Amino acid sequence: MRVDPSTLDARGAYRLMIACLVPRPIAWTSTLAADGTPNLAPFSYFGGVCSIPPTVMVSVGRRRSGERKDTATNLLATREAVIHIPDRARVQQMVASSAEVGPEVDEFLLVGLTKVAAERVKPWRVAEAPIAMEAVLERHLEVGGGPVDVFLLRVVLFHLDDALVVDGLPDAAKLHAVGRLGGELYCDTAVPFRVPRPS
Amino acid sequence: MRVDPSTLDARGAYRLMIACLVPRPIAWTSTLAADGTPNLAPFSYFGGVCSIPPTVMVSVGRRRSGERKDTATNLLATREAVIHIPDRARVQQMVASSAEVGPEVDEFLLVGLTKVAAERVKPWRVAEAPIAMEAVLERHLEVGGGPVDVFLLRVVLFHLDDALVVDGLPDAAKLHAVGRLGGELYCDTAVPFRVPRPS
Repeated sequence: MRVDPSTLDARGAYRLMIACLVPRPIAWTSTLAADGTPNLAPFSYFGGVCSIPPTVMVSVGRRRSGERKDTATNLLATREAVIHIPDRARVQQMVASSAEVGPEVDEFLLVGLTKVAAERVKPWRVAEAPIAMEAVLERHLEVGGGPVDVFLLRVVLFHLDDALVVDGLPDAAKLHAVGRLGGELYCDTAVPFRVPRPS
Repeated sequence: MRVDPSTLDARGAYRLMIACLVPRPIAWTSTLAADGTPNLAPFSYFGGVCSIPPTVMVSVGRRRSGERKDTATNLLATREAVIHIPDRARVQQMVASSAEVGPEVDEFLLVGLTKVAAERVKPWRVAEAPIAMEAVLERHLEVGGGPVDVFLLRVVLFHLDDALVVDGLPDAAKLHAVGRLGGELYCDTAVPFRVPRPS
């Protein structure tokens, strides 16, 4: 089956893209508004960019109304974030934090999560998340017809739950990281398999 | 456990990043050199950027020697790619295609895959891959200390294996897409679960 994306409307293109680009890691992203209101929201147009320095890309689409989402507004205003990797135990709260609510709503309260102070940036860290990355905005691009706001963020501090660390690194099977698939589907990294790299 | 990435060497930062940013989709990327030599290689610093138009990001690190990898050289020279999503049945071939070999090596032959002509771009499509996206280069950025080459590519045609399509979209459970985790570990989307979106 062939699909020419120029024949699709916005919803059709989005549905096809999220069903094809799988599995996607989730940037569960905490930011602060200029007035200090906390925000927390998940994004799966997200990926690694480079390791030196550790840098990630988060793309934030516009609301249906065309306005920026709070995460994008906040990143442009305050230039810092804490990006968490959600695990299976917190998947309901992660998805609940994607509700389209007003900028005055604190999603930590909305979905019942504990705020902890980050060390090197001002946004709150989610106490319950197994991995958290404190990050600062390095670069912002507008891309596409929406457009979307693409943020390159440099990680300045990693937090790893001790219970999932093996030999100094997060262990995928213990982590149970959640990946996003198409529609309302998710996967989990609980059953990894090994494929040796070519020499 | 806290990790300050400024205390890590290049290998340590890479190992930490790939263990934290999970699960990662894999851009199994076919390109052509200026002289027409085919190239195929997998990258997991990869993600969706926007849906209108369908756009993805692929980040290509340098070789240990500091030189560009063939995929980056080819994209800068010929500006087209076919990006495939690998499935469990082809995972060994996908990983084998990551071997560091000279630019004269055709990885389709090296790992035993069938070349099919793409329709709107010149690089070959992998006949055996369940999803293929013909794409053209829209934007190139250099990021970080390596630096790495970050490519924004616009998808101009999708190919979906009919056997995995349900209601016009790829079905994650049928697809068995492979995601990359830390170290030499991978996961598979064979057992998805559903979490309804908030209204």
